[in-house]
Amino acid sequence: MQKKMIYFDNAATSKPKPAEVLQAMQHYFENIGTSPGRSGYNLAITAGRIIMESRERIAELLGVPDPLEIVLTKNVTESLNIATWGLLEPGDAVITTAMEHNSVIRPLREREARGEISLSVVPCSPWGELDLTAMERAITPQTKAIFVQHASNVTGGIMPLEEIGAIAQRHDCLLVVDGAQSAGALPLNLANSAVDIFAFTGHKSLLGPQGTGGFYVKKDVAKQMKRFLCGGTGSRSEFETHPEFLPDKFEAGTPNTIGFAGLNAALKFLKNEGVTNIRAKEEELTAFFLTGLKSIGGIKIYGPADAKKVLPAVSFTIEGISPAEAAETLEEEFGIMTRVGLQCAPLAHRTIGTFPTGTIRFSFGYFNTQEEVQTGLLALKKITNSNR
Amino acid sequence: MQKKMIYFDNAATSKPKPAEVLQAMQHYFENIGTSPGRSGYNLAITAGRIIMESRERIAELLGVPDPLEIVLTKNVTESLNIATWGLLEPGDAVITTAMEHNSVIRPLREREARGEISLSVVPCSPWGELDLTAMERAITPQTKAIFVQHASNVTGGIMPLEEIGAIAQRHDCLLVVDGAQSAGALPLNLANSAVDIFAFTGHKSLLGPQGTGGFYVKKDVAKQMKRFLCGGTGSRSEFETHPEFLPDKFEAGTPNTIGFAGLNAALKFLKNEGVTNIRAKEEELTAFFLTGLKSIGGIKIYGPADAKKVLPAVSFTIEGISPAEAAETLEEEFGIMTRVGLQCAPLAHRTIGTFPTGTIRFSFGYFNTQEEVQTGLLALKKITNSNR
Repeated sequence: MQKKMIYFDNAATSKPKPAEVLQAMQHYFENIGTSPGRSGYNLAITAGRIIMESRERIAELLGVPDPLEIVLTKNVTESLNIATWGLLEPGDAVITTAMEHNSVIRPLREREARGEISLSVVPCSPWGELDLTAMERAITPQTKAIFVQHASNVTGGIMPLEEIGAIAQRHDCLLVVDGAQSAGALPLNLANSAVDIFAFTGHKSLLGPQGTGGFYVKKDVAKQMKRFLCGGTGSRSEFETHPEFLPDKFEAGTPNTIGFAGLNAALKFLKNEGVTNIRAKEEELTAFFLTGLKSIGGIKIYGPADAKKVLPAVSFTIEGISPAEAAETLEEEFGIMTRVGLQCAPLAHRTIGTFPTGTIRFSFGYFNTQEEVQTGLLALKKITNSNR
Repeated sequence: MQKKMIYFDNAATSKPKPAEVLQAMQHYFENIGTSPGRSGYNLAITAGRIIMESRERIAELLGVPDPLEIVLTKNVTESLNIATWGLLEPGDAVITTAMEHNSVIRPLREREARGEISLSVVPCSPWGELDLTAMERAITPQTKAIFVQHASNVTGGIMPLEEIGAIAQRHDCLLVVDGAQSAGALPLNLANSAVDIFAFTGHKSLLGPQGTGGFYVKKDVAKQMKRFLCGGTGSRSEFETHPEFLPDKFEAGTPNTIGFAGLNAALKFLKNEGVTNIRAKEEELTAFFLTGLKSIGGIKIYGPADAKKVLPAVSFTIEGISPAEAAETLEEEFGIMTRVGLQCAPLAHRTIGTFPTGTIRFSFGYFNTQEEVQTGLLALKKITNSNR
């Protein structure tokens, strides 16, 4: 008999996606199938509209008036690389936090290793809370930018973006935000914020397919940046140099049109459901889980452990059982899929004291139910009991 | 009444794709949906196998023994950028040809504009034929690499890769090939060739979805290269530096798993049909078209105009009608979709003498029929006649 499977790995990729996502991809596949922005016939223009619709829907979701400030990429990592390689000049200093994912840290470490930039990592508490005073103190006249996650993929902890933005503005630094976990999970209004670049991915809380992502960049900031990927854009094809205007400056080659068609359907779904409602539901699931988890003996929770302060990801360890063993039992005996270990965030695990074995992470999504969370709690109770 | 539409823009993106491509994507969407290589549960491992299967199938198609020498990207442009930014050190010289697409030229021009490399563009004849003697003469002790297309997206003309490879080896240069048009359209056997990097895209003759691509790179060459995109790889997660081993060195972030699932189905289809048979059919269609085209007065064909020497793309102009006007009539009156203008290759159009208005390009695919090509010829005959 096949076990009913429960998916608690939404911080890696959301699953399931709304059915409309597949329908939109199927529609593109069967009825469009062309390359966008490169030819003049109707079906090519239709494909171009899909790409434009992605920009518009994302701009609306992020609270940005100009869809041309939305650059489309394959994932948040590409977006963060464009920021890292495009924004920072030799001699620049960068500040980041001790809770970052490798998608933020690794490009910065690469430039540091090449001797191009200096990097200052601001400490966080063992609960993953940023030391704002330390951040402000770390700023020097060379500091060009602050790179910071909006929320941790390990503990779910939400960073105080407004306070960080105030620091950035006070010292005339640019603010680059890794929104991998937050886009689609938290209501956003970036237009009048201090955020200069906001990188997102399509396949997590935006509920779209893998292979889609992008970033918002302020027009004036984009002007200061160097290009990264260069190539065919379908625009200014008479020039052998890559264009300078947005969004083409940072886009090259045929985009993932079928993926963006799917993402558009997901964005429409998000709009209909309302990100505020989604946040409320996910907060409720997280609160329910945290309350239950705290009542089980032998479990240690990392991060703020307060549903209001986290996205729906909770990291914990079980006394006497390694995260890897726990994951195996959770899947084999209870059909629960989780991600254990370092979750591509070694720095965060050093901060919360779980390096190098990491944690067990339960991450919920909009389609999880309270019943599933309850099953998860019962499973954890059995595992900890059988361990005594 | 709706006109039957005819798609002759396969050099931009192939259309239709085999039905199996959509089926595989649907299967992934409904039954897998996880992130590959990042978690330990069964469905995550299944997603990881999709990515590994892509490497294996592409390695087989390209005639490469080690699938770890296949790096997966979003498109050929990303692949060519990784080569351009990774391979070339300040002070290096590069040789390329006067028939290249902007995906080759623009990254090279960007590095040239930054004063990092010097670029020598070897002339080609007005038929797009490379001057091999000029290429060899252009080599200096600083020449690190030759960047060359395998086949032109404008004229379809196939470059003499073996002769170019011999030149590269004679002068100890690396050979980087833009295989955007050729992968899946020509039988390939790269293992014992002079090719060091072969960049491809998934959505043209490989018949897969947009958002997929990659490159083959020789292990020893990869070692000399710098990283480009850095970030989470799901491997060596304990390190804040991006790994050095293949293929992870050049991959970062969640890949387009649903896209690669589709590409795998396409690659299976290609294997069953046989690239040799596909080439034979496409050559036949091209020969049929060229013969017909030559019999119509007032049409000028560019490139070799010999089906054996081209991939199924033919560029031409009609006396007294601009390419843009011709395209409009072709679509509105005959339901034919073509790509006109510069096709993102201004350099090639300067070479063949069609800059800046460009050409009309008919590009055929495996699913086009002789009947469709015949309809195309009749349409062109009517257009040229009505023009007299």
